[in-house]
Amino acid sequence: MTNPHSSDLRRSPVTVLGLGPMGVALAGSLLAKGHAVTIWNRTPSKGDGLVAGGARRAATVAEAVSQSPLTLVCLNDYATTHEILDPAAEALSGRVLVNLGSGTPAEARSAAAWAAGHDVAYLDGAIMVPPPLVGRPDAVFLYSGSPGVFDPHRETLASLGDPRHLGADPGLAVLHNAALLDLMYATMNGFLHATAMVASAGVSAVEFADLAVNWFMPTVIDATLIAQAPSLDKGDYPGDLGTMEMNANALEHITRTSVEQGIHAGQPRLMRRIAERAIAEGHGGENYLAVFEIFKKPEPAE
Amino acid sequence: MTNPHSSDLRRSPVTVLGLGPMGVALAGSLLAKGHAVTIWNRTPSKGDGLVAGGARRAATVAEAVSQSPLTLVCLNDYATTHEILDPAAEALSGRVLVNLGSGTPAEARSAAAWAAGHDVAYLDGAIMVPPPLVGRPDAVFLYSGSPGVFDPHRETLASLGDPRHLGADPGLAVLHNAALLDLMYATMNGFLHATAMVASAGVSAVEFADLAVNWFMPTVIDATLIAQAPSLDKGDYPGDLGTMEMNANALEHITRTSVEQGIHAGQPRLMRRIAERAIAEGHGGENYLAVFEIFKKPEPAE
Ligand SMILES: NC(=O)c1ccc[n+]([C@@H]2O[C@H](COP(=O)([O-])OP(=O)(O)OC[C@H]3O[C@@H](n4cnc5c(N)ncnc54)[C@H](OP(=O)(O)O)[C@@H]3O)[C@@H](O)[C@H]2O)c1
Ligand SMILES: NC(=O)c1ccc[n+]([C@@H]2O[C@H](COP(=O)([O-])OP(=O)(O)OC[C@H]3O[C@@H](n4cnc5c(N)ncnc54)[C@H](OP(=O)(O)O)[C@@H]3O)[C@@H](O)[C@H]2O)c1
Repeated sequence: MTNPHSSDLRRSPVTVLGLGPMGVALAGSLLAKGHAVTIWNRTPSKGDGLVAGGARRAATVAEAVSQSPLTLVCLNDYATTHEILDPAAEALSGRVLVNLGSGTPAEARSAAAWAAGHDVAYLDGAIMVPPPLVGRPDAVFLYSGSPGVFDPHRETLASLGDPRHLGADPGLAVLHNAALLDLMYATMNGFLHATAMVASAGVSAVEFADLAVNWFMPTVIDATLIAQAPSLDKGDYPGDLGTMEMNANALEHITRTSVEQGIHAGQPRLMRRIAERAIAEGHGGENYLAVFEIFKKPEPAE
Repeated sequence: MTNPHSSDLRRSPVTVLGLGPMGVALAGSLLAKGHAVTIWNRTPSKGDGLVAGGARRAATVAEAVSQSPLTLVCLNDYATTHEILDPAAEALSGRVLVNLGSGTPAEARSAAAWAAGHDVAYLDGAIMVPPPLVGRPDAVFLYSGSPGVFDPHRETLASLGDPRHLGADPGLAVLHNAALLDLMYATMNGFLHATAMVASAGVSAVEFADLAVNWFMPTVIDATLIAQAPSLDKGDYPGDLGTMEMNANALEHITRTSVEQGIHAGQPRLMRRIAERAIAEGHGGENYLAVFEIFKKPEPAE
């Protein structure tokens, strides 16, 4: 092997399949941390920079995976992942496969089943940072699958960032990824809509962000969510400090203010409908968190 | 006067009209800080505790407002406020009226116009804390209206909490109140929906809150909003680090994951529709914040 780092015996060799922006960042970070890195990509030229940096390019997927105890795969979707890995199943047997491509929990579980059927140890993962932040110690990577597979490779995975193991169900990493993005979009949309509301009276986003993000979100919202999480687990929503009825009125008021100010009212209107659904299902005297009970079920057909 | 604090000449007398839970908290906080307090309420008995604590009860609204240079009014809505104040307009003339009841910006502006027509100096306000927190130095109260009215009474208003003046337009306080509550509900709903998503795989709210609120929200979401606020003011949404098209796909993925997990999908579906509207209006190659442009206009009829 001509890899300049191959003498660094503390660092385990790693194979990276898929060299989109994320795969390139993963392989580059591993090289920088001193791992021997083998790469493969459908379009080989995307690995030229990595080869110049010391990576070894394999001609086939089977050849690539046979170079390392651990293979990271980072392709556009699960269909491509299956297509690429099927012919290399035998070469992967007895090794560890970590899938970092995005998908649904069902796709992750079916990939884990495929791996189990070929005697491949499997972890599913989700990358919570964009490519430029890969390799930083605070770059969060979520993993799920057998702890017996995760624990021995924790140190190698720490070369990519901060590895967090969520549990044995292989679907947990992508499920948490979807949930955190869901929260992110909802919060961003809430902020953008609220900013549109004050912008209708000439207030700037910078001014509003100072009030909303520097003061209101951490002191009022975040503190409430942390304090109330145990009640969600218990399904306990006492209404003594404010009821769903009061909150539905507040949402009606926000919807009316949006209309009055000439801005989009779709989001507050949907939130009001959800609160009204909670009232219709008997949560009118409970507190606002009882909306959780509505979210845990599919919505009724319109 | 029998008020035990009437000798405290540094504290200006204040009249409080309306003794619901909030009015009682306002009057109680003022008494505790040493103001001479005059109260009035439709149902006088609600002031019994305050009278025992040193407040002076007035028999009529006109009598109440004539006892103090500054009157706080905290009634259920603007209609009641007008009904109560109309007969006392002459007594209020030359004094300051601060309306702390909830309403829309148009209602606040019309109350300000009524006040101007009767030579009453007017501020509109919004109380950002529940009654038990009134009087604490970090209890935020938002005010709007002439700075010439606000500035001389800042110290008196500081007896209620942290007074913040937003500008001369009297509609700004209730508008900011609606915007901040809008953000709060959107963020809470995002959190509750995301928690429902992971709960579908048996993850507890306490576990998820630790990841979502203690790590993800402050480091990923809040930092982005603060950093991006100037771009919103400029209407500048470069797509080089990620486009609306990519975000619409992510929202489609979140919607699909919600359906697959058997939970409510209304919120992610609406967010996806909003992103698709942004694409249809030519923002497909811009970044996600271009959703701001959609929110600034009424939604098209369905
Ligand atoms: N970029 C990010 O910010 C980010 C963040 C977190 C997670 N992720 C996830 O990481 C994964 C990779 O993302 P990415 O940004 O690197 O780019 P991507 O466009 O999602 O994926 C590009 C990779 O997929 C390969 N590919 C696509 N179709 C193929 C096919 N039919 N046969 C063989 N290979 C095929 C590409 O090969 P060619 O080079 O030959 O086209 C390339 O290696 C995705 O699942 C993404 O969701 C990305
Ligand atoms: N409570 C909170 O957490 C909170 C927080 C921020 C802002 N606010 C705002 O503060 C205002 C007051 O709220 P609140 O919680 O104290 O209780 P509320 O139920 O909203 O208002 C109660 C007050 O309104 C009076 N009232 C209602 N209808 C009346 C009528 N037709 N004629 C005369 N008086 C009438 C009540 O008099 P009676 O006692 O005679 O019924 C009482 O003084 C509201 O605008 C609310 O939105 C409240």
